Amino acid sequence: MTSTDAESRPRRDAEATRAAILLAARRAFARRPYTEITVKAIAEAAGVSSPLVIKYFGSKEQLFARIASFEDGIDDFLDAPPDRLGRHMTLFILDGHAHRHSDPILRIAFSLVQGEQADKLRANFKSRVVRRLADRLTGPDALLRAELAIAHLVGLGVVLGVVQAEAARAEDVARVADWYAPGVQALLTGDAPPRQARA
Amino acid sequence: MTSTDAESRPRRDAEATRAAILLAARRAFARRPYTEITVKAIAEAAGVSSPLVIKYFGSKEQLFARIASFEDGIDDFLDAPPDRLGRHMTLFILDGHAHRHSDPILRIAFSLVQGEQADKLRANFKSRVVRRLADRLTGPDALLRAELAIAHLVGLGVVLGVVQAEAARAEDVARVADWYAPGVQALLTGDAPPRQARA
Repeated sequence: MTSTDAESRPRRDAEATRAAILLAARRAFARRPYTEITVKAIAEAAGVSSPLVIKYFGSKEQLFARIASFEDGIDDFLDAPPDRLGRHMTLFILDGHAHRHSDPILRIAFSLVQGEQADKLRANFKSRVVRRLADRLTGPDALLRAELAIAHLVGLGVVLGVVQAEAARAEDVARVADWYAPGVQALLTGDAPPRQARA
Repeated sequence: MTSTDAESRPRRDAEATRAAILLAARRAFARRPYTEITVKAIAEAAGVSSPLVIKYFGSKEQLFARIASFEDGIDDFLDAPPDRLGRHMTLFILDGHAHRHSDPILRIAFSLVQGEQADKLRANFKSRVVRRLADRLTGPDALLRAELAIAHLVGLGVVLGVVQAEAARAEDVARVADWYAPGVQALLTGDAPPRQARA
């Protein structure tokens, strides 16, 4: 990544610019009502011009569609054999917060959108995260187990990124995963738990 | 609750009014930047007058302090013996979403506050939810385990209340708890997991 190869430089700059626009857009959609967000404000936050945002992403609507698509990072997030997927997903969230300043699913928790946009965000999350995970599971209650495994991982993102929990952020990620991943994996593996009385 | 006892009626009405104001305030603080929220808007959303909001809660600042206090419901949320606390907390979240339209901790995930207000919300959440739970745990990594158990329960609230996951909302709460509570309880009980290689 330290190469100064002149030929690849423009492409990397363009990628960095796109990433800066997407980051500014994610923040904007998380912090202000959809109707109040403008391409101009996103461009300013990203340090670029409005026409450049339009050139790269089309319009505010298309930019939101991209943010709300739950496409970025999901392939990698789900990329492990079933018997190791719990630990893989847990480490993916932990490493994302520790090193990449990114989380592929956390935006579902706090994007400040309502109405039609919220419906779209929710539908995308269900089809592109929860359902894709459920399709990889065997055994009873596959959709329920996928929803609950995702609950673990969204919650982990909230505790790391919003609560900024001291111990979870200070501890080695592999050790945090030692505590956290077995519960995720148990849901993925799906050995049916004994039914208990309510309380 | 169907009593029409004339003497207790005013007190119940006052409680219902306070609850309506708190609900309107929670929604307002979750949906708009703090600086843009007014007592007038909260009063209108609650169907009461601004002076009544002031009478009950003092000011916008005091109303936010109340919302951000993480006092309401936390005693009940944590009220079970350690060996049954995982299932109790899990059922408390599930029952809250299914029957009471309430969740004692979910607001940490999406309150739209920044700066000083966000710091206050986070500090309260740490001291009045996470730390209180950690203080009840024995064994190694108590704070870490409390943070991770809370991650489970915040995530469950996100999946029920924001994602509106079909299977988790349709399934009997006791059955959902059968799947979900063992992972919470394992963190509370704290039998140290074996250390694993990273992946």
